[in-house]
Amino acid sequence: MAEYVLHCFPESGGCYKAALMLALCDADWRGQPVDYHAAEQRTPEWRAAHNEMGEVPVLEHGAVSLTQSGVILHYLAEQTGRFGADSPEEAREILRWILFDNHKFTSYFATYRWLHSFTPDADPQVKAAFRSRALGAFAIVEQHLAGRDFILGARPTIADISMVGYHFFPPEETGFDLPATHPNIAAWLGRISALPGWRPAYDLLPGKRWPRG
Amino acid sequence: MAEYVLHCFPESGGCYKAALMLALCDADWRGQPVDYHAAEQRTPEWRAAHNEMGEVPVLEHGAVSLTQSGVILHYLAEQTGRFGADSPEEAREILRWILFDNHKFTSYFATYRWLHSFTPDADPQVKAAFRSRALGAFAIVEQHLAGRDFILGARPTIADISMVGYHFFPPEETGFDLPATHPNIAAWLGRISALPGWRPAYDLLPGKRWPRG
Repeated sequence: MAEYVLHCFPESGGCYKAALMLALCDADWRGQPVDYHAAEQRTPEWRAAHNEMGEVPVLEHGAVSLTQSGVILHYLAEQTGRFGADSPEEAREILRWILFDNHKFTSYFATYRWLHSFTPDADPQVKAAFRSRALGAFAIVEQHLAGRDFILGARPTIADISMVGYHFFPPEETGFDLPATHPNIAAWLGRISALPGWRPAYDLLPGKRWPRG
Repeated sequence: MAEYVLHCFPESGGCYKAALMLALCDADWRGQPVDYHAAEQRTPEWRAAHNEMGEVPVLEHGAVSLTQSGVILHYLAEQTGRFGADSPEEAREILRWILFDNHKFTSYFATYRWLHSFTPDADPQVKAAFRSRALGAFAIVEQHLAGRDFILGARPTIADISMVGYHFFPPEETGFDLPATHPNIAAWLGRISALPGWRPAYDLLPGKRWPRG
């Protein structure tokens, strides 16, 4: 029986954040697919059993059940001693970027991708609104990474692992080819993917794939 | 000279989260208005001096400068000993709701309000997309508050102070009359506004008001 169980589905970059952390820490874990196609995670039964917010990821570790990728990443950093803060200042800096990520950097990008690849009748103006907001968030990170290897500087932390969540899906699916337009982000993603244990999202997350179109 | 300086503008619910915490803790603080009308916080000079993310709130406390309301709330809880966690479990629960707030509960509501009241040529489909997402987040909190006085249960924490950030602006401005439709949220807001030191957003945040329309 695996030490950690991650409730997930393959297209979820939020789930990938947790799965990538588990993989980079060489943890003993398995993925438990949710039937996202049937909106299983939105049913009253699933909400009552796992997460009232109706979302994955959910991470189970013994009697502990956690939701929100940012909580899961902080918990795993404590449990494993990897990718966490070495000081209160670093802890605040990590939390700052994880909040920015949840509010803007991941959020707008993830919604744009869903409209672009998985919502056949998406409204063009709504798509444009999320695309524009995503580009604004990308510009801030592109600038921040000038002269830095990782978000906090010399070493990777859970801030990086959170922020790359939607950046290892195929570009035709995300609707952005960032390496062509954002060289600092491209180099950063290269450094992340060179970490021992790294694998892309669709290699880590089990479950039935969602039809594009 | 005030102990805390909060860079802010009056219409920002993110700034109100920090200001409300300072007020509830009876801290020695003052607001430092940013000229949001002139997009001062987006200029390279302001970003370099205060926050590369181009956003307020920014809280200064001696040599410490903090951004992101969730970081500021955690810091003030540590400094004052008020509204923080009493255990690791509570700390995770607080962070869970603050992340949900930044991703969905505040984020969609705040964007809807801005389009509704401060963006004369807002696209109706974009407005509808954010309104629908806000209502989804409200429903989760309405359900969570059934049988609970505050987000964690019996006592208010920084999770509540974060989540009420946009709920003490006038309903004609926010575009939602939640007391009429969400009785648990209404009762919760009543409990928050009864806390000693509470004042609504426009009473706490200094600066020139933005013209509606």
